[in-house]
Amino acid sequence: MRRTNTCGELRSRDIGKKVCLQGWVRFSRDHGGVAFVDLADRYGITQIVFDPEDVPKGTDVNNLSNIMRTFTRESVVSVNGIVRKRVEGTDDGRNPTGEIEVLITEAELLNRSNSPPFELGDQKEGVLPNEDTRMRYRYLDLRRTEMVQAIETRSKFVHLIRQYMEKNGFLDIETPILARSTPEGARDYLVPSRVHPGTFYALPQSPQLFKQMLMVGSMDRYYQIARCFRDEDSRKDRQPEFTQIDMEMSFVDAKDIQNMIEGLVAYIWKGLYGKNLKTPFMRIGYKEAMESYGSDKPDLRYGLKFVSLTETVKNAPYDIFQRIIKSGGIVAGINLKANIAGEKIGRNEVDRYIHQAKKFGLGGLTWMRCKDGKLDSNIVKYFTPEVLDKIKQKMGAEEGDLLFLIAGPWKSTYEGGGALRRKIAEDLDLVPKDEMQFLWLVDCPMFDIDPVSGKHDAFHHPFVLPENDLDAPYVGGACFDLCLNGNELGSGSIRIHNPELQREVFRKIGMSDEKIEADFGFFIEALGYGAPPHGGMALGVDRFVTLLLGKETIRDVIAFPKNKKAISLLDKSPAKVDESKLEELQIISMAIGDIDFDNLENTEE
Amino acid sequence: MRRTNTCGELRSRDIGKKVCLQGWVRFSRDHGGVAFVDLADRYGITQIVFDPEDVPKGTDVNNLSNIMRTFTRESVVSVNGIVRKRVEGTDDGRNPTGEIEVLITEAELLNRSNSPPFELGDQKEGVLPNEDTRMRYRYLDLRRTEMVQAIETRSKFVHLIRQYMEKNGFLDIETPILARSTPEGARDYLVPSRVHPGTFYALPQSPQLFKQMLMVGSMDRYYQIARCFRDEDSRKDRQPEFTQIDMEMSFVDAKDIQNMIEGLVAYIWKGLYGKNLKTPFMRIGYKEAMESYGSDKPDLRYGLKFVSLTETVKNAPYDIFQRIIKSGGIVAGINLKANIAGEKIGRNEVDRYIHQAKKFGLGGLTWMRCKDGKLDSNIVKYFTPEVLDKIKQKMGAEEGDLLFLIAGPWKSTYEGGGALRRKIAEDLDLVPKDEMQFLWLVDCPMFDIDPVSGKHDAFHHPFVLPENDLDAPYVGGACFDLCLNGNELGSGSIRIHNPELQREVFRKIGMSDEKIEADFGFFIEALGYGAPPHGGMALGVDRFVTLLLGKETIRDVIAFPKNKKAISLLDKSPAKVDESKLEELQIISMAIGDIDFDNLENTEE
Repeated sequence: MRRTNTCGELRSRDIGKKVCLQGWVRFSRDHGGVAFVDLADRYGITQIVFDPEDVPKGTDVNNLSNIMRTFTRESVVSVNGIVRKRVEGTDDGRNPTGEIEVLITEAELLNRSNSPPFELGDQKEGVLPNEDTRMRYRYLDLRRTEMVQAIETRSKFVHLIRQYMEKNGFLDIETPILARSTPEGARDYLVPSRVHPGTFYALPQSPQLFKQMLMVGSMDRYYQIARCFRDEDSRKDRQPEFTQIDMEMSFVDAKDIQNMIEGLVAYIWKGLYGKNLKTPFMRIGYKEAMESYGSDKPDLRYGLKFVSLTETVKNAPYDIFQRIIKSGGIVAGINLKANIAGEKIGRNEVDRYIHQAKKFGLGGLTWMRCKDGKLDSNIVKYFTPEVLDKIKQKMGAEEGDLLFLIAGPWKSTYEGGGALRRKIAEDLDLVPKDEMQFLWLVDCPMFDIDPVSGKHDAFHHPFVLPENDLDAPYVGGACFDLCLNGNELGSGSIRIHNPELQREVFRKIGMSDEKIEADFGFFIEALGYGAPPHGGMALGVDRFVTLLLGKETIRDVIAFPKNKKAISLLDKSPAKVDESKLEELQIISMAIGDIDFDNLENTEE
Repeated sequence: MRRTNTCGELRSRDIGKKVCLQGWVRFSRDHGGVAFVDLADRYGITQIVFDPEDVPKGTDVNNLSNIMRTFTRESVVSVNGIVRKRVEGTDDGRNPTGEIEVLITEAELLNRSNSPPFELGDQKEGVLPNEDTRMRYRYLDLRRTEMVQAIETRSKFVHLIRQYMEKNGFLDIETPILARSTPEGARDYLVPSRVHPGTFYALPQSPQLFKQMLMVGSMDRYYQIARCFRDEDSRKDRQPEFTQIDMEMSFVDAKDIQNMIEGLVAYIWKGLYGKNLKTPFMRIGYKEAMESYGSDKPDLRYGLKFVSLTETVKNAPYDIFQRIIKSGGIVAGINLKANIAGEKIGRNEVDRYIHQAKKFGLGGLTWMRCKDGKLDSNIVKYFTPEVLDKIKQKMGAEEGDLLFLIAGPWKSTYEGGGALRRKIAEDLDLVPKDEMQFLWLVDCPMFDIDPVSGKHDAFHHPFVLPENDLDAPYVGGACFDLCLNGNELGSGSIRIHNPELQREVFRKIGMSDEKIEADFGFFIEALGYGAPPHGGMALGVDRFVTLLLGKETIRDVIAFPKNKKAISLLDKSPAKVDESKLEELQIISMAIGDIDFDNLENTEE
């Protein structure tokens, strides 16, 4: 028996054809001695029917009946049969094959399945088992329509990227996975060398240095769908390994890179949805993003903009604000309009948000409500009517509106305010689910400066081209982020191509000359052999696809993800290894712990 | 200044245009006060000219002249200029831009290069520096035309594969790099887990188990350009990490997979060379390949076939042959025809080959020469004229032909003979360089059985579907190799889908039930949940491209390869790491060695 069609293929036009289908027994039911089976594969589901009264002459009905009895759930079977129209009234409009069914004439059990630990059928709308169980039996989980679609979309997404990059003259170049440990923020995964005991490779956190050296090597346009690795403590939506679309171009400016990426996203859009995506994307400066939305990846799909009140209240005799403003802090407000929010947030809810605000790192939360044409709250007594009127005006407050005021140091206060803004928007269901709002975050600083110690960190990374003299009071960096609906999809920048400037930036972020030489000597040396002006970008594939599909977690768009504790429940890794292997590597493990895969505590949050 | 054209783009049709070129100063010369510079990038070389007598009105000639003086070799520069026809007689027909040059009107040094450690120009035909130097400065090496072409071809090759696989409905699915150590022949690279101290991930030697589980997961058609890892002792042409085109299909037989791969290779052919490749490829059984060519990846581009003489000489009173044949060994001969080989191989050369034969593991090498119509040598006295005549007939020996006879145990003797055959063909220049001879090696055994101990190893790997009962005297395996010119490009097979049969095969190759459960329990469990009949193949990308380009080593088609000692001379890895990192991993390294990258012994062979 050779498969002639997939389970998603047959239509009315095929009625009368002899076919052979092979697939999985998803669901079966007996109806007056007639067996109806939903036969499933990646492509769809076709109803196959065994009707003892209606088989070709000469068929051994008993034998066929016996075979059909072996068709247990999720077993793999092969059937020959004839396509026929379903009985009037039993066709299924939701299923593309729903007008037909296949009358079985021959059948074979190809491989029996043990009883599956959870229900795969979509008809049943059964609640999914916990994620650990899905991971443990990922091969079963993958058969679910939702997972098939996720894997298919991801495959298509990645292929569209490749088509676009090839069309635009980019070379697909592989960079090493076994490389040098170069401190890039997160922890490296290390790989002990057996040939050179005592030394280690590191898995790359990104191909950053290699792609820059490819530009030094005149490759001009490089791209790679690159696997990257970060040994981070478990966070909601991180994986030890993840995938990025990585690209780099020579002889370009930031706008060239952004245009190329906008073209890419529009190409993906057209390919996935058949629709034109509006470009160019909106641009917003880092400062404005922070001061209006409390985020460097603002979600602009809903309003709730912060308005600065620092100037407005700076002379009001309210101690808390006074102290904050005098020490360089800010005061800002957000107006929850009466119709969308103000009326839904009563005194109890306000208290809950005050509590929430502290969790988000804010010192507190001040509120005022517009009532009878005036601002009212427990603190209005500290403000003159003139100041209150100015606040009302500045915030555009109207009858019934609720104002939330935040105050404190610039960065942490806006960040906390941004978290609060998101929480309110989610609570009040203000986020349009189907809107996709891309934007460029631009005009970023070169350094992140600790307000207390003055210590400089790279805002993006130390390879970004500074836009001013490094000793200037403010140094901008030629870097930018692509954001989607409040998520950062990736970062790009023009890079430093001058070896001396590169060295200066490393010094500025506190590296000693010895450390610079040890960690990045080879790279600075490379820049000294004719590095062209260049820049590039990287976009997270997992996250991008997750957002496009509206999934909760990147684990749902990865075929074989690890759980939140960096464990693969499917192949049971990481695991202990034979002592002899460690001996070969000349390493000793001080830990005697192992993972008890059968008794894992639930990793759900 | 913004680049308007690449250095490989301008032609006669562009004469008169104002252009901006940016690239590397490959070569410059002064000719009577006029400076000629070969400006290079990935796309080509354009001659740019600074002629102080011939600049636009208002040009500051002194300033321009000063800038030109900074244009040292391999520096990156930008020039504005006007395309003009070259002076009669100075055009360069070998260069596509050779009819024109660009008269410089403005110039800028973008980045100065230190004096390069080796010559990059192709004109000079300079001998390349040793490979270690090329690796150390790989970014310079990559600028050479030959390397650019290799990287471009590889990029195109891989993209053609992807186009073909997508056209044929394969899903591009990524499998984990951090996975479980499963003994698959070679040594694994291990990655200590920090979150679960005492446990390790392993880097995959291939995605074998994952791709099979994708079939269990109903993915039907999977492919991936997959990075694989093997911690092997340094061999001529192996890398710690390598790339394969990996694919798997459900509900297919071996022929389906071979057809799909032939289609792929033909598609690549058309894409790279614009030519149709003849398919189907020739098929040869394992036994015939071994007995005719002494190889399981025979090179059929030249003759030199072995002919079995076991039956012919089994009664001749030549002790050595007698003993060998009685203990189950074989005797075979190869005829070096007078015109192509026989006359070029005198007594001295014969002695050299006898010496060589021992190196190839042969017990010895017997020779006979056809002279005056008869076979002659120092051993003919041990043979009756009748036997000699039969040998002559069987070998088709004619006047002047030289026969080499090998004798011994089947496998090692044919393997040694195969090595000798290749050596002779190379020595006598019998290998047609431009011919590409693909073939399928088929009808392979399931097991490799040690003739002494009887120990069974998997001939390919233990996931191959056995074609007979496991207790049969000979068990065939549903596996096959694709070979090109005496090289194995990759292996494929139909896999076992029955969990019990899988367990039996593991037992047959000597694994205890405990070991099977510990190493492959999760995989056998997966087969028990409705694994469909499936099979697939993997082809080595590095080797395939290397052969297509006629390179000596796969290092020449990898952007950043490691040397034969698994060292990256560019980023100096593997390297020591901070003790604190090892503490976090709770491992101790017993070795205190480090690599002295500046004083490496030469790794050339």
